[in-house]
Formats: sequence, C-alpha cells, structure tokens
Amino acid sequence: MAPRVLRCVIDFFGYETTKSVVVKSWSVGIINRVIQLLIILYFICWVFLHEKAYQVRDSGIESAVMTKVKGLGSYPNRVMDVADYVAPPQGSSAFSIITKLVVTANQTQGRCPEIDDKFTCTTDDNCTTKSGLNFGNGIVTGTCLINNSSNINNTKGHCEIQGWCPAENDRVPVSVMEGVEDFTIFIKNSVRFPLFNVTRGNFPSSINETYIKNCRHDPIHHPFCPIFKLGDILKHINQYLSNIASEGGEIGIKIGWKCDFDYSVEMCNPQYTFSRLDAVFEKSNVSKGYNFRFAKYYQSPDGTEYRTLHKAYAIRFEIIVSGNAGKFSAVPFMINLVAAFTSVGLATVFCDIILLNFLKGAEQYKAKKFEEVSGIETQSVHKRLYQRSHMSLKVTEKNSDDSGTFCIRHQE
Amino acid sequence: MAPRVLRCVIDFFGYETTKSVVVKSWSVGIINRVIQLLIILYFICWVFLHEKAYQVRDSGIESAVMTKVKGLGSYPNRVMDVADYVAPPQGSSAFSIITKLVVTANQTQGRCPEIDDKFTCTTDDNCTTKSGLNFGNGIVTGTCLINNSSNINNTKGHCEIQGWCPAENDRVPVSVMEGVEDFTIFIKNSVRFPLFNVTRGNFPSSINETYIKNCRHDPIHHPFCPIFKLGDILKHINQYLSNIASEGGEIGIKIGWKCDFDYSVEMCNPQYTFSRLDAVFEKSNVSKGYNFRFAKYYQSPDGTEYRTLHKAYAIRFEIIVSGNAGKFSAVPFMINLVAAFTSVGLATVFCDIILLNFLKGAEQYKAKKFEEVSGIETQSVHKRLYQRSHMSLKVTEKNSDDSGTFCIRHQE
Amino acid sequence: MAPRVLRCVIDFFGYETTKSVVVKSWSVGIINRVIQLLIILYFICWVFLHEKAYQVRDSGIESAVMTKVKGLGSYPNRVMDVADYVAPPQGSSAFSIITKLVVTANQTQGRCPEIDDKFTCTTDDNCTTKSGLNFGNGIVTGTCLINNSSNINNTKGHCEIQGWCPAENDRVPVSVMEGVEDFTIFIKNSVRFPLFNVTRGNFPSSINETYIKNCRHDPIHHPFCPIFKLGDILKHINQYLSNIASEGGEIGIKIGWKCDFDYSVEMCNPQYTFSRLDAVFEKSNVSKGYNFRFAKYYQSPDGTEYRTLHKAYAIRFEIIVSGNAGKFSAVPFMINLVAAFTSVGLATVFCDIILLNFLKGAEQYKAKKFEEVSGIETQSVHKRLYQRSHMSLKVTEKNSDDSGTFCIRHQE
Repeated sequence: MAPRVLRCVIDFFGYETTKSVVVKSWSVGIINRVIQLLIILYFICWVFLHEKAYQVRDSGIESAVMTKVKGLGSYPNRVMDVADYVAPPQGSSAFSIITKLVVTANQTQGRCPEIDDKFTCTTDDNCTTKSGLNFGNGIVTGTCLINNSSNINNTKGHCEIQGWCPAENDRVPVSVMEGVEDFTIFIKNSVRFPLFNVTRGNFPSSINETYIKNCRHDPIHHPFCPIFKLGDILKHINQYLSNIASEGGEIGIKIGWKCDFDYSVEMCNPQYTFSRLDAVFEKSNVSKGYNFRFAKYYQSPDGTEYRTLHKAYAIRFEIIVSGNAGKFSAVPFMINLVAAFTSVGLATVFCDIILLNFLKGAEQYKAKKFEEVSGIETQSVHKRLYQRSHMSLKVTEKNSDDSGTFCIRHQE
Repeated sequence: MAPRVLRCVIDFFGYETTKSVVVKSWSVGIINRVIQLLIILYFICWVFLHEKAYQVRDSGIESAVMTKVKGLGSYPNRVMDVADYVAPPQGSSAFSIITKLVVTANQTQGRCPEIDDKFTCTTDDNCTTKSGLNFGNGIVTGTCLINNSSNINNTKGHCEIQGWCPAENDRVPVSVMEGVEDFTIFIKNSVRFPLFNVTRGNFPSSINETYIKNCRHDPIHHPFCPIFKLGDILKHINQYLSNIASEGGEIGIKIGWKCDFDYSVEMCNPQYTFSRLDAVFEKSNVSKGYNFRFAKYYQSPDGTEYRTLHKAYAIRFEIIVSGNAGKFSAVPFMINLVAAFTSVGLATVFCDIILLNFLKGAEQYKAKKFEEVSGIETQSVHKRLYQRSHMSLKVTEKNSDDSGTFCIRHQE
Repeated sequence: MAPRVLRCVIDFFGYETTKSVVVKSWSVGIINRVIQLLIILYFICWVFLHEKAYQVRDSGIESAVMTKVKGLGSYPNRVMDVADYVAPPQGSSAFSIITKLVVTANQTQGRCPEIDDKFTCTTDDNCTTKSGLNFGNGIVTGTCLINNSSNINNTKGHCEIQGWCPAENDRVPVSVMEGVEDFTIFIKNSVRFPLFNVTRGNFPSSINETYIKNCRHDPIHHPFCPIFKLGDILKHINQYLSNIASEGGEIGIKIGWKCDFDYSVEMCNPQYTFSRLDAVFEKSNVSKGYNFRFAKYYQSPDGTEYRTLHKAYAIRFEIIVSGNAGKFSAVPFMINLVAAFTSVGLATVFCDIILLNFLKGAEQYKAKKFEEVSGIETQSVHKRLYQRSHMSLKVTEKNSDDSGTFCIRHQE
C-alpha cells in the first residue's frame, strides 16, 4: 500500500518537459532567429511602445462642460447681447448663437390669409380641398380671401387660415448680425478618470489668472488658453462667416484627453479640434443649415395674449469630450509579456515547414523529429505498407521477456 | 578562444524543435482531425465570419443630431404651432412635444388659500403646525382662510400660503391637443467614425430632394426617409396616442449605424428603432408619465410682474445614436490567424488524454511518449519502486568512463 | 497506386503528439506544481471570480432620465417656485437650480454710461480709443458722459455705450435664496441593456407607492429611494450651501448600474454617488462657480420692447448614468478555460530554465532533453568542434546500407 501511495506522490511531482531535437543547420537556424526577432520587434514596437499594452486603460470619463459666450452683435438699429442671442442660456455643452432673425411681431390668435404661394386661390373651391391641412402657418379654413387693396390682380388671393396671425413670411430678406466673428467662447471642462481617480481641468490653475482671462486660443502659441474666438474657429474649418451666419450650421469642438499617467499628471492636457458637424449635408438642399423657431409671449392690458415669432438662423456649437488614459498595471503587463514569450515559439511552426520539406536532408530531419508507433488495430495494414515503402522510419519493440536493449531501426 | 566563440554562434543558430511521436491509430487520428476541424470551423464561422475579428472596430462615433417638428395642433379655441408646443425650441436631440396644458393665468406674488385637500382647516391651529412647509404652491403662513362665499361648509377653509397667487389647481380636467398624430419629426443626423475618417448622413444627398421633403418613414418601403410621423412611431411601439398625450411619456428613437467599410461606404446606412423609454415604470403610480412646469412672465404697465403658470404634459423624444463600424486591418487579422493556428494544436490535449488512458495499448503509447530521467536526489527511492513495477520504462545511464553506448532499457 | 493513396490517408489520420521527458526530481517537480498552482489560482481568483471572464458584458446602455425638483425658495419679498428657479424646466438629466439673481429691470435699447471702472473717463479722447469695443454691456460710442449730478467728482464720468440701458451692475450685493437645502430632486431613471434585453427602473414597482413618494434617499437606510434632499447631497460631498449658493457650482449625481444577470434581474439595482464636478477649478479665480444670463422680454402698450436682465448664480446638476452588466456565455467561458489550460503549460518554461541550468545533473537532463542533428552543410565545422568539446551529446547516423542499429552515443 505505502509504496503505491509513495509512487503516486512521486508521479505527481514528476516534471514533464518536451523532448527536443536540436538541428545544427545554418539556414533553418538563421530563419528561426530572424522570425523570432520579427516577433519580438512586433511586441516591443507595436504592442508595448505603440499600443502601450502594459497599461490599464480608462476611456469611460466623467466630464463636465461649462461654456460662456461673450461679445456684442449689432443689428442696424439695435445691439444684441448674450441674453439675446445665446440659446439655451444655461451655458451647457450644446448651445446656439443666433446670427439672423426673421421676426413676425404682434401675432394673435385669429384668421388671416396664408402667405405661401402654394395657397393662392381665386375661389373658395381652391381652398376647401386644402381644408384641414396643418403644415402651413395655420389650419386652412376653406375660405379664399381676395386681396381687394391690390389693383392689378384683384381676383387673386390666398386661402384663409386659423392660427397665429399675421402669418410668418420667412422669405423676406433679413440682414445678418454683425460682429459675430469677434465673439469669444470660454470653455471650462473638467474630466475625471474614475479608474485612476484623477481629475483634470482644461486650464491649469497654476497659470496666471490675467492670462487666462485675456488670451485667445491658438493651437501653437496658446494651446492651454480656454477662450476661443469664433472667427478663429471658422478659419480652422475653412468656413466663411457670411455663409454660416445667414444659413446656420453646426460646429463641433472636440476636446480630446489622451493621457499617460505613467508620466506626471500635470502633463495630461487636452487637445482641441474643430469640425463642421453638418458637412455631409452641405451639398443637399433639404433643410440646409440650421434654424429654429421660438416666440416671445406678451399680454396686452385687456388680457389678450400676443406673441412675436422668431425664426432664428443660428450657429450651433457642440462640445464633444473624449478621454483615454493609461497607467502601468501588473496584470496586463504580465499577460502581454507571457503572450510575447509564447509567440516567440511560433517561429518553429514556420521553420518546421521549411526544415521538413524544403531543406537538403529533410528526410533525415523527419526521421529524427518523428517517431512512429503503430496502433494495434492498424498494425497489419501498416506492416504491408511499410515493408514496401522506402525512406520511412519504423519503431518496433522487442517484447521479449529479457530486458533487451530498446532499439530504433532505420529501415532501408 | 575562437572555436569557443564559433561554437556559441553555432549554438545560437541551432534550431530547436520538439520531438514528436506519430501514432498510427485510426481512432485517435480521426478524433484528432475531428476536433481540429471543429476548432477550424469555430474560427472560420464564428471568429472570422460572424464576429469579423479581422477588422479594427470603431464605436466611438461623433454624432450630431438636428430635429425639426412640423404640424399644427388645435385646442378648442386656439391653434398651436411649433413655437408653442416644442420645448426646448432649438431642435436638439432631446425635445418635448406638449400635448396637454394646465394653465393658471395671471398669478402675482401675494397671499391666498392653498388648493390641495391636505390643507383644509377650520381654525388657525390646523395651519400653524404646517407653517413653513414648502412643498405646496406656496409657503404656509399659519392662517386659516374660511371661504365665506360658500353657503354649505362656511366653517371649512384652506390654509393661507404666500407665493404666486392664485394657487394652481392641477386636478381640473383639461382637454388634450388634437392633431398630434399627424405631426412629423424631421431628423438630420450626421455621424463620423474618427478611426476611418468617414462621415455619413442619415439621408443620401443623391436622393431626390422633393422625395426627402415629402416622404414619411416606413421601415420597409421608405427606410431612408428621415421624416417620421408621430402616429407611425406610436404604432411601432404599440402605444395609444390618447394615453400618452394625456399623461405624457418618453419615447426613444434609436439610430443604429452598423457599418462594414470593407464594402462601399455608400452601404453604410442607419437603422431606426423605437421604444418607450419609461416602459418600466408603466405599472407604477409614482410620477406616471411625463410633465413639467414653466411660466410665461408679464409685466403690467404699473410695473408689477405677473405670470401664467403652465403644467405641461408632454411626449418627450430622445434620439439615441450608436455606431459600430469595422474595416479590414492587418494586425487583428494576423493575431486571430495565429490564434487559430495555435488553437488547432489544442486538439492534442484531448487526444493525449484518450490515447494515454482509454485506448487499447495505452501503456505502449505511454512508454513511447514519456522518457523518464531519475533525478539524482531521488534515485534510490525510485530504484526500489521501479524494480517492482511492471510495464514501466526506466532510463538509466551508464556513467562509466568509457564512451559506452547510451541505452534505453525496457524493464519487465 | 491504391496503396499510395491509402498511405496518404493513413498519414493524414496519424496522430502526432510531442515526445516528453519525465524528470523524477523533487525540486523541479515541486517548483513546477507550485507555479502551476499559482497560474490556476490566478485564473480562478482573478480571471474567473473577480473579472468574471466567463460572462459577456454589455456597457452600451440606453438610459432615460427624468427629474423633478420640488420646494419653495424665499427671497425677502417674494416666494420662488419650480417654474421660477429651475432652468431649463423640462426635467432633463442636466438642470440648474438658480440660487441668486442679480436683476437689472426695465432695460431698453438706447445709449447710457457704462458701469465698469475700466470705462471711466474725463474727456471723449479716453473713450474714442475704446470705440467699437464690444465686450462690455454695450458698444462704446466714443463719447464721455460726465455725471453732473455727483458733487465731488464732477469732471469724472463713464464712456457712453449703445445697447440695453441701463447697463447691468453685477457687483451689487444680492441676497441668496433661502430654503434651498430643503429642495428635493426626484430622479426617474430607466436603463436598458440591449444585449440582454433587460430593462430596469431605479425604483422597484413592487415597493409601496406612498413610501416612494415620501422617502428621502440615504445610502444605508433608504438606498432605493429616488428622492434626494439637496442638503444631503451637499453633505455627501462636503460642501457648504452658503458657498455654492452664492457662487454657483456643478454637482454630478452618478447612477451606476453594475449588474450580474446570472443572479435574479431583481437584484440589479443602481448605486448613487455624488461629486462636485468643478472641484478642479476651485482654487482658480477664473470664472469661479457657475452663472449665466437670461432675460425676460416685455412689450409696453406703445410697442417698445423692454426686458429684465437676470444674472443667475445656480447649482447645476448633471445626472450621469453608467451601466455594466454581465451574463454567462459559452464562448468567453470556453476561451478563458482554454487560456487557463494552456497557461498552465507555461510553468515548464520556468522549470526548464531551472532544470537545465541550476540543478545538480543539469548536463544529464540536457542530454536527455535535447537530441542533436547536424545539418549537412555544417557537418564539417561541427565535427571539428565536437570532437574537442566535453559533456556534449552528439547524434550520428550510420548511413550504411545495412539496417544497422541506430545509436545515441554519450561522448566523453
């Protein structure tokens, strides 16, 4: 009993390693080492240096953006400030700067003629077909209102609508607000990398306060300045103010945090890139640019509500924050180190193919590398075959009772 | 010296490969090939074809969404347009369409009775206990106001509050806006895959302009149409307008971009899916639906501010954009190819178990596969054991001074 | 012919396995098993139990957040309700609670003196240099307005501006709204894990309705309560209300869904954490806190527009939802199991180093492990070397025509 248990223990602690064949051949040896070198280089250069696979990465950042626009825009007879042209006013990461306004003042609920040419009519019959249509400025009632005051076409009019009257005419040419190119956008962005518990702001608190308050961002000379001149942004994305201000558009300000916390945290600073977000629709004529409608509501002393409708053409800004930080960590380092070591072994796969097929003396190598054991069930088939075959190696065992020498015979 | 260096170089370029045993056994051979086939099939079908592991993937898209609602809703005595019922008006990816309004007009700062039944009182004592409570329509002053005008319960009143008066009574039945099912939502969505620098819009600029302007989205007949009829969306998610319009609710429009840039970029088009986002709370009676309060502020000629409070029941839309694109890249392709090749070798693990344990002649295979070397420190123990054991193989080395033949003896 | 095809088939189904050397040595055996144990422990404890690598994970959640603030704030002469101090009012995941207001009433378009000390002047020349400057309250016209009414400095004035008049003076001390600490924020958050098609709400519908309506969140006693008292949130992040209310600030409410769907779905509940998002800028004096400007527009009976400008100091809340759920899946389980098994084999790499270099009898092990084959092209070089070398093993093959015994000789 005891010896049997002991043998089990010995067997358990028996160390098993592969038996190797060492081939002293310049050609395969050099090929092997070159492939190994390439694999090592791939791991060092790409996996470790470029991809930084020895780091744990965190891209699920928590970001908070606060924006503040400054500047005064001027219309022919009025000056507009931030409270007038920024919507919504809360200084969030997405906001619009209104650059052109089509104003329809003093609208009240009632009935009036539609403006659009699609609603011209000569008799009520033209309008009854459109009755109930609700995609114009109001609901078509079915009556045709002939404009008597006009001398020439006094038999032509527009269908009557019910809704806010007078109806908006957004085809009137309107002047664009001036001074927009000088507006500045101040961006306060703080990001937190929860995995590393590191919080960073987009401008260092160490930098001079008056500098931060008065600088203008420039990718080369003022990369840390958080104040962006609107004209500069447009220049970066090759857009003309006149175009974008009269038709509206969407501009993306991308703040990219690419940080390596193996270096000082102080070196973790953002990169700003700009793009026109609606660039893909530029060629399309469908809903060109960007505009929206809003109304200011008033109440007259007698209690009737009236409003001023605004169709606002605006530049919409979206601040998109993305982050990706890495820091050395033992687990990914070990995993990739092990992967590198085991991958080096892959060189043998290629070398074996060369060794066993294309090299002078391949048959000898084959004979050394492979040892054959015939299965019991196939022995008879094999015997017949191998007796005829040349250059093959067969292992037979003398199962004699004496402890005879175990031999490997090379068959000719 | 020189020969020693040379030998080092020769050793370095010596190619080392594993010595293999080839077993000519139908059973293990077939099992081996079948397992290898399964592994290869797994890699081809799942890893390469299904998971497309040969691609680099980019799911960190930059997306810009612009929305525009159209349609006119009608209340008994007024028509509401976009400027009235869309909030916020900027056409962002999240917006609400107001479907029902509880209006409390002409509120001014002052003192008045609370409305809610929780604040009924007969004497001031009922109210002093609630004094300072600030979760009603105003701050409870502690006075009980007896409503003298009512004939029946002239001793019952409500606590006095300070705040905007008169207090809002949101239990009054209010009619729902009509025409909501015909409203349309136009969605302009452009996405950019930064890794591939590909930008796509949700409707092709090649498609006819008038089609885009007049179509209505349908998953089968008009999959590229960016205009969604509100009634259709509700049908897709099995919701009744009457329900959602009177209580409010949240609807998600998900735009999924699943692209394969190995094909033409033109084939990268979005898929729209709809869902009721607050579905999980449907059964709960706590804060059912969706509503919010806002006020329109007015000023009377004498300078006192007054306001009209609105409790708005609304359908809130959220447009959620997600993207995932892939493109062939050499590095992941190589990594997975290598993984496939090395995984094929795993078949031996299973086959070895079968070969060495369950097969006829397992002991012979074992003898051929394993060569034993006794460690110096354990030799004495081993000798005693192995002399008794049958069918085991022992390697002994004649450490004689003469260069005797090295033998492997088969012990019986 | 037929036998050749048959031999090919036999070769194809020949099972190839590595030939192994079993070393009966306590030291290496124990080291080997210890390393294997460590590798197995790493896989079981870290990879499987801690990282749950047997699961497919989904972190791309779809989340919908609805918020509702309740409470009444009091200013010396007025009470403010939700419609007054929450902006925007729609109850989205980001909203501001206004805590302090600098009000500039009855502004009209016109000309008036600037307020700021930077714009003091004695003659028009002081102002012409600043003419056109558009970063104050209005556009500088170039005229110096001497304030005649002041007796002392009657030669000192301010530059005239064009814009909304009178100009805002935001340095006036203003009282902070009271009662803010008692405000409550109700959060309704539903998340969907698209991969598992599981939807969860942040409060269970099974819980008593009246409890949900009246509870206050507490991490220990009321973890499922969705109503947060503002004062409690501030306590959690160690902030004083007086500070944040007078200067403004940003607070993040993070809802983390970490779910394991191998357990009941009912156990998937959120965790709430709070943080001051602008903490990193606390030391900086640049744009401290958080404030924004908005205006209420009025129209006088004669049609002239006037407005009341508000500079609002506010606490901004951002609700950040993140999710990460896992569920058992066969594919990652198999992949990691296979990785675990193959990694166990890595122990041999370390043991081989020990065995072949540091162990007593290393040369004998080397001799057993490695079998040398001299390549044909290098044989002559080798012969010369190996004849001199001691303790090296050489394999030579008698290529005689007779089927001579193949021998491995141990050279001395």
